[in-house]
Amino acid sequence: QSNVTVMGGVDAFAGSLKNSGDRQHTTVLGSGGMTTSWFGFKGSEDLGGGLRAEFYLTGFFQTDTGASGRFAGDNMFSRDANVALAGNFGRIQVGRASAPSFLPNILFNPFGDSFTFSPLVLHSYVPTGQFGARTWASTNAGDSGWSNHVVYTTPGWNGLRASVHYQAGEKAGDSDKNNVAISALYSKDKLALSAFVHRVRDSNPNPGGPIIDATRAPVNYASLDEQRAWFLGASYDFKVIKLYGTWQRTVNEAAGVEGLRDRTASAGFAIPAGPGAILFDVADTRRSGTVFGAQRSRRTASLGYDYRLSKRTDLYSVAMGDRITGLPTAMSYGLGVRHSF
Amino acid sequence: QSNVTVMGGVDAFAGSLKNSGDRQHTTVLGSGGMTTSWFGFKGSEDLGGGLRAEFYLTGFFQTDTGASGRFAGDNMFSRDANVALAGNFGRIQVGRASAPSFLPNILFNPFGDSFTFSPLVLHSYVPTGQFGARTWASTNAGDSGWSNHVVYTTPGWNGLRASVHYQAGEKAGDSDKNNVAISALYSKDKLALSAFVHRVRDSNPNPGGPIIDATRAPVNYASLDEQRAWFLGASYDFKVIKLYGTWQRTVNEAAGVEGLRDRTASAGFAIPAGPGAILFDVADTRRSGTVFGAQRSRRTASLGYDYRLSKRTDLYSVAMGDRITGLPTAMSYGLGVRHSF
Amino acid sequence: QSNVTVMGGVDAFAGSLKNSGDRQHTTVLGSGGMTTSWFGFKGSEDLGGGLRAEFYLTGFFQTDTGASGRFAGDNMFSRDANVALAGNFGRIQVGRASAPSFLPNILFNPFGDSFTFSPLVLHSYVPTGQFGARTWASTNAGDSGWSNHVVYTTPGWNGLRASVHYQAGEKAGDSDKNNVAISALYSKDKLALSAFVHRVRDSNPNPGGPIIDATRAPVNYASLDEQRAWFLGASYDFKVIKLYGTWQRTVNEAAGVEGLRDRTASAGFAIPAGPGAILFDVADTRRSGTVFGAQRSRRTASLGYDYRLSKRTDLYSVAMGDRITGLPTAMSYGLGVRHSF
Repeated sequence: QSNVTVMGGVDAFAGSLKNSGDRQHTTVLGSGGMTTSWFGFKGSEDLGGGLRAEFYLTGFFQTDTGASGRFAGDNMFSRDANVALAGNFGRIQVGRASAPSFLPNILFNPFGDSFTFSPLVLHSYVPTGQFGARTWASTNAGDSGWSNHVVYTTPGWNGLRASVHYQAGEKAGDSDKNNVAISALYSKDKLALSAFVHRVRDSNPNPGGPIIDATRAPVNYASLDEQRAWFLGASYDFKVIKLYGTWQRTVNEAAGVEGLRDRTASAGFAIPAGPGAILFDVADTRRSGTVFGAQRSRRTASLGYDYRLSKRTDLYSVAMGDRITGLPTAMSYGLGVRHSF
Repeated sequence: QSNVTVMGGVDAFAGSLKNSGDRQHTTVLGSGGMTTSWFGFKGSEDLGGGLRAEFYLTGFFQTDTGASGRFAGDNMFSRDANVALAGNFGRIQVGRASAPSFLPNILFNPFGDSFTFSPLVLHSYVPTGQFGARTWASTNAGDSGWSNHVVYTTPGWNGLRASVHYQAGEKAGDSDKNNVAISALYSKDKLALSAFVHRVRDSNPNPGGPIIDATRAPVNYASLDEQRAWFLGASYDFKVIKLYGTWQRTVNEAAGVEGLRDRTASAGFAIPAGPGAILFDVADTRRSGTVFGAQRSRRTASLGYDYRLSKRTDLYSVAMGDRITGLPTAMSYGLGVRHSF
Repeated sequence: QSNVTVMGGVDAFAGSLKNSGDRQHTTVLGSGGMTTSWFGFKGSEDLGGGLRAEFYLTGFFQTDTGASGRFAGDNMFSRDANVALAGNFGRIQVGRASAPSFLPNILFNPFGDSFTFSPLVLHSYVPTGQFGARTWASTNAGDSGWSNHVVYTTPGWNGLRASVHYQAGEKAGDSDKNNVAISALYSKDKLALSAFVHRVRDSNPNPGGPIIDATRAPVNYASLDEQRAWFLGASYDFKVIKLYGTWQRTVNEAAGVEGLRDRTASAGFAIPAGPGAILFDVADTRRSGTVFGAQRSRRTASLGYDYRLSKRTDLYSVAMGDRITGLPTAMSYGLGVRHSF
């Protein structure tokens, strides 16, 4: 009766990982060196009159252990679990879907959605590396996907498309505990631009937790209950080289008082070489605020080569250096394979 | 080699929910306003001589968060995980499958399998609303699906089909801890009838827990260890209106002594209107018994409009009132979309 | 865009189970009497020049409850979550996949991959039956599947194919905590042979746990931190009867000192009879060592009939006797159906 597509991507790599602050290297046969492994289903139905119903039902898994999700406690379909109506009016989508910050982050750095080796994505979403007694928290609050989420996206206009996002906090008697955002993507010829603004007050993938990180000492990230973020991204494809750049500011409050402030900038390029491309990116974050203490910087840079065996399959090798002010530079390496289906 | 169908349904709604006894409304972007979202696989094989092998492997998910199952702790394929042989002799099915009470409940009320807005289904299966310090328990014991379950279904005879159900309790040295039931469905022309009797002694989806509810105070539902239920349902389709009615009695024992008694009646209709239908249903439960105290009633009524965009996709809006004796009436509202694949 | 196959097997049985040492029988409607129920996806892509990309993404489930995995805490895709490149050079596969001991065990006994009724598989992988205050541990360390796993397999050569296996322990600063193995399969005409050697230092499906069993008293299996195993298997198909035999020795160390030693031998046959086959197998394990105490034997034998309804669907009945030295013989029985898709 139906017309469902089964799809996904399997990504695995051999590597040695050490982020700034980690005491030792870890030798891994890991999952998702370039793209977080995922699987799922999608489908659409023509309802007539230009109207279309669509659904996405996709989840992450770990190629190395076969575990569901990105981490223990993640939801099975935390990548997508949504249904949408699309037509001349634009598109309305309801359910779990990527956060407004996600596409701007992954489209405007040459390492895409690598949660292992993309400097920008590492800074934005992944708590990695030890800083004192604990992990250095990511800059983006509220996960790379939003639950309880409705998105309205405008029709395309000259390469421009904007979206309004709302996430219900689903807290009884408190409709103020929600997340809201506006995002925009522009793409025409060689130029692409992106921007988003969000205000995050609730956690993900499941509501009710701290918005950035659950740790309380020595840095009390768990006290932060609201984040506002502003982001700009641009890429330009000169064909012999494609340039990428982003800038983001986040301000985090604890009980109405500013407690943490991050500024992240990234720049990178991809140079076509043979059947693949040389990739380089650097991201720099400056962090300060009352819950954090004196300003510190984190700078992460990756250099890689992505070798395409086909449109669906590639091999990649990456070296990454990572340094938090006052800590030694740590190096990570990976050699992997990625296959889409 | 094989012939597998991927199938499911995605249902999401925006709403405001408050059941009788709840202190406050909750604004939600929820999952399954009309049908609990699900996905899965089915297939069949012609074995010759009129014999057929069939399997179903389906599970629920939550469109709002992407979580697996109906609730935390539910099993991944708790909707169906079974294999069957069907032929002239009827059909034998082994594995996890819907409880004998499920089809009679969802086919004989106009809101179908809505665990959010169908008054009958709410009363039968969903512990909702605060009653004193705790949730008002559902009337049906042992879940809407049975595990460790064998079903024999007779061949169809003039529109009538009956089933015998057995669930092994799988308790070492105790083969008496099991569930048994007989159910029947009749459907011919405009009339449909249904009946079931069950005796439930084991919990679901996983065995060994309380059969109705785990709470002990102030109402000790967890002491109940056996339920007997009797159910009758009827519908008649006059075309300008389709009428629905059900009646159910359950008697629950704690250590061989009657401890709780429920009587549930429901009545409703669906009136075709435009490309959809106006839906109305009311369910009334009277509860009493030694573990519960003086008799109380719960009455729930829903009014909705279901607008069909196609056979596979519809929009719905529902308003529901819910009242437990002595507590204020609580109102819930929802506006949603449902898409089958 | 892609070419994905959805596949799996559903297996359910009615039975009465009691392993040696169990106090009482348990009446079950169980899952996986002959094959552990599973589902999943596979696909491959022709990359040209004889090169091929392949992926497998499969997981187990329990037909009786619909639960994911083989046991509580198992991973969703613990059967397979891997990607491979295959060509003239052989095949390199990365990710979660069956352990080097798995194929040699299941191909060289007539009950195949039955974790319920195959005597050899029971001894190798399943902790069953009470021995004193606790379960008798399986002989194989590190699960029937390995995580963080890279396998290189040679091209076929006259029916012979060998593989080298490596599992990274992923422990920071300790690259010695890993698993390694060599395995070989030979199959030509009526004869098949198999051998493997492994050295296991890390647990599965998730790293960091005890390699055999978590219990500490009265037998401290959890102290064992390295296992070395040697295995030989053979089968010969005389057409009127197919014979099977295996021999395995395992030596387990605790902190560098030999603590447990197992010797397992199995022999069996399959005799074609009607549309199916009569199956018989016996496995015998002798266990001794400082963590275990005086030598004990466990002997398990199964007799069954497998009736094929088609290539994809069969019915089976099995009787199994199980005895640990000094404990009464315990009998188990099962009647089931298995369907592949």
